[in-house]
Amino acid sequence: MRNILDELVKRNHSVTVLVSEASPSVDYNNSRHATKFNFLVYKVPFSKSYLHGLTEELINFSMFEWHHSSMLKKILWSHDWTTRSIDVLMRQCDSMFKDEQLMATLRDSKFDAVLLDPVTICGDLVADILNLPLIISLRLSLGGVIERHCGHAPAPPSYVPAAPLPYSDHMTFVERLINTVTYVSLSAMTDMFWRLRLDKYYTEVKGSPTSYCGTLGKADLWFIRTFWDIETPRPIPPNFKHVGGLHCKPANQLPADMEEFVQSSGDAGVVVVSFGSMVTNFTTETADVIAVALGQIPQKVIWKYKGNKPKTLMSNTRLYDWIPQNDLLGHPRTRAFVTHGGTNGLYEAVYHAVPMVGIPLFADQPDNIARLSRRGAAVVLDLNTMTSDMLRQALHDVINQPGYKSSIQHLSNVHRDQPVAPLSTAAFWVEFVMRHGGAPHLRLASHELNWFQYHSLDVAAALLVVLMITGALCWAGIRCFLLRCRRGRREKND
Amino acid sequence: MRNILDELVKRNHSVTVLVSEASPSVDYNNSRHATKFNFLVYKVPFSKSYLHGLTEELINFSMFEWHHSSMLKKILWSHDWTTRSIDVLMRQCDSMFKDEQLMATLRDSKFDAVLLDPVTICGDLVADILNLPLIISLRLSLGGVIERHCGHAPAPPSYVPAAPLPYSDHMTFVERLINTVTYVSLSAMTDMFWRLRLDKYYTEVKGSPTSYCGTLGKADLWFIRTFWDIETPRPIPPNFKHVGGLHCKPANQLPADMEEFVQSSGDAGVVVVSFGSMVTNFTTETADVIAVALGQIPQKVIWKYKGNKPKTLMSNTRLYDWIPQNDLLGHPRTRAFVTHGGTNGLYEAVYHAVPMVGIPLFADQPDNIARLSRRGAAVVLDLNTMTSDMLRQALHDVINQPGYKSSIQHLSNVHRDQPVAPLSTAAFWVEFVMRHGGAPHLRLASHELNWFQYHSLDVAAALLVVLMITGALCWAGIRCFLLRCRRGRREKND
Repeated sequence: MRNILDELVKRNHSVTVLVSEASPSVDYNNSRHATKFNFLVYKVPFSKSYLHGLTEELINFSMFEWHHSSMLKKILWSHDWTTRSIDVLMRQCDSMFKDEQLMATLRDSKFDAVLLDPVTICGDLVADILNLPLIISLRLSLGGVIERHCGHAPAPPSYVPAAPLPYSDHMTFVERLINTVTYVSLSAMTDMFWRLRLDKYYTEVKGSPTSYCGTLGKADLWFIRTFWDIETPRPIPPNFKHVGGLHCKPANQLPADMEEFVQSSGDAGVVVVSFGSMVTNFTTETADVIAVALGQIPQKVIWKYKGNKPKTLMSNTRLYDWIPQNDLLGHPRTRAFVTHGGTNGLYEAVYHAVPMVGIPLFADQPDNIARLSRRGAAVVLDLNTMTSDMLRQALHDVINQPGYKSSIQHLSNVHRDQPVAPLSTAAFWVEFVMRHGGAPHLRLASHELNWFQYHSLDVAAALLVVLMITGALCWAGIRCFLLRCRRGRREKND
Repeated sequence: MRNILDELVKRNHSVTVLVSEASPSVDYNNSRHATKFNFLVYKVPFSKSYLHGLTEELINFSMFEWHHSSMLKKILWSHDWTTRSIDVLMRQCDSMFKDEQLMATLRDSKFDAVLLDPVTICGDLVADILNLPLIISLRLSLGGVIERHCGHAPAPPSYVPAAPLPYSDHMTFVERLINTVTYVSLSAMTDMFWRLRLDKYYTEVKGSPTSYCGTLGKADLWFIRTFWDIETPRPIPPNFKHVGGLHCKPANQLPADMEEFVQSSGDAGVVVVSFGSMVTNFTTETADVIAVALGQIPQKVIWKYKGNKPKTLMSNTRLYDWIPQNDLLGHPRTRAFVTHGGTNGLYEAVYHAVPMVGIPLFADQPDNIARLSRRGAAVVLDLNTMTSDMLRQALHDVINQPGYKSSIQHLSNVHRDQPVAPLSTAAFWVEFVMRHGGAPHLRLASHELNWFQYHSLDVAAALLVVLMITGALCWAGIRCFLLRCRRGRREKND
């Protein structure tokens, strides 16, 4: 999202960021940001640390408890966590909509378009209330429910795996069965949840019957932050634009000390290790498993890690609180990337053609890494069963077996070979919406149908009735004919 | 198609055109062409005039007999004409495949890709036999059967009208009913026809079980020669590229005498009249109706017409055998375009923002013109009931009522506002396929499924069985429980 906003500012547009004071991701006090964007910050009755705590809870449960929890516990925990998250999001919405000065400012500002990620709610309702064109930027939703139900993007269960399943588009019968059941149950659950919680709230705020999905469905454009090099090819509505990898760019110069360390690796090169910005530390045992493996390879290692320094850490490995990941992955000495499989890092590795060792933690990460592994560009390890030896061997393989490099190079070639770069595509379409006040020519008319019209159920019913009447008439005709025949024969016999 | 080939030559590619000596559309003797393209011409056992006659027959029946023919006659005629056309196409294929020298040349030429319009058959089979990437360029097929069945592009009958129906994407219940029946019957008819005729032939040539649709379905890319400004928005596979209007370009200078005539129109301006290249003359009555109307308007008129000069023709109207249509439509003095509604002219009019009077003759023309009429950019007239007065009035309206001009101007703005121009898009993707030997990352995996897997019928059946067994077990359990209860009560009573 930041990348699109930066690009819009670069193109001389004025960008206003609407954000709650408790936002854990938007640093509205940063002076460098304040000169670029206008911030509209509204008060909320909870703190940044409360939101942060919710995220921590999700990560901890997903990483450490999910595997050995019963299905019942998983469901109960998910329900509880989701309920609390939605509650806090609704309180955030309330604070926004009840802030009359804020709403007046929004109304008076005469914006050209609203850009949002549906990871939070209500942004679409703001666009709707202000009667502004809406652009959605989305990585994915669980089971693709938002894309399918609200964006009307088809996802045939026979060849498009549902979002959390690490299947390819060539599924076995059993996989297709599980996939279909996953789609149906996730659809039903989410739909019920939307109806019971969000639709009620949206209707309350708007003052007329309004649905969450219907409001999202008004979007003029959907930016999907994946691309066909990794994403499963599927039919998409014309207003879906796949812009995966829009944040990738050629590498900049590294900080001097880091560059020196990288250069010291010589021909052996460097391995970059990062588990993303959300996971900050591991258990001592896990950290040791990783540190020992890294200590055994001939490469120098740059590991983004905020936890305590493992005692087993060797001199070839340096820990950093933060790394310029894109610049490191684009460095000519970089040989491999150890990653949790978050989309951002993954696209950077594809862009710079760096083979990977994936250690997925939760969410879409197992699926992401599985996609690269199937394409021969990554080795997957399981954090819970991984040994130092396995990690060392995996790194040895992706660095020394030429297949991994050539596979990722092919993906990189395909990814870079687009008529317009993803970031320019996104910026073009934002500007298009601003120029024309929307993009109705790209929007499916299905959004104006209700569900039984959309699925042609009324037509099917009508055809069935016609068929039954025709059948009945034919049957009556044949019966009449037979009766007459019989009577004729009887009369003849008489 | 020519436009793509020209662009490829401009980009320094070598283009070979494989054509039968009887081709009515490719002028392989033209020296201007011969310097640009390599022609591979093969002999066929029929003449150019025979092929031309088939087209003439189609036009004459569609224009003059279709309206007052019974459904039975229409079906019989269509069946007869299609059978003869397919026969001649198969004879053409035979001549090609049995020309061993030709096939050897094709094999030895080591082409990078095959580009074809499925208006004829066998080109896909050539690509398949030579094991070359295939690119399809298509305007549309009847009922979208080729796009739907062979390209796996979804077309939900609830909001995507079937190709010959002039419906919008907002259909009434009855329209949706007719649309669904049209889809189903066209699908069934075409599918049967393919199975009985083409699949047998393809299997024969290939020497192993091969289907027409399956061979087309191997295509890496599909260029669809429409765009969302006019086309109904619908979900598309990632390997479908909409390149409608790729032939449109800024106007060139007109020939001197024509420019002089156009300039002589003054502020009143010019009206351009063309019924395309296929229809060359009308009945005397029709020609008179048109000539009289054109004679009554204050504009000068340029009419592309090869028939006898109507006696009623006035001095403001000039007849031409051929006109530089794109240059005329792009001329600042041009006020309106009288057209039969062929896609090419229509996109030129959209590109240059010229409002239209549409007099559709047959095929997709009524639908094309209806789309522009619904968008307020054209008036539609019926050739069979049209009077001079109606045509005069229609021209007066589109020229003098500002709504028509502003509507077509809006369409033109949207059409021109694309990140990459349609011709560049087409050329880019041809070159992409040449660079990478195909574009498998854009192709749906559904092509590898058979029809019941594709529609998840096996999964549905399995789920149904599971559901039934579960139901039976539940019922057995309840029954057992009730029996035991009853027995318990009886024992108690005893």
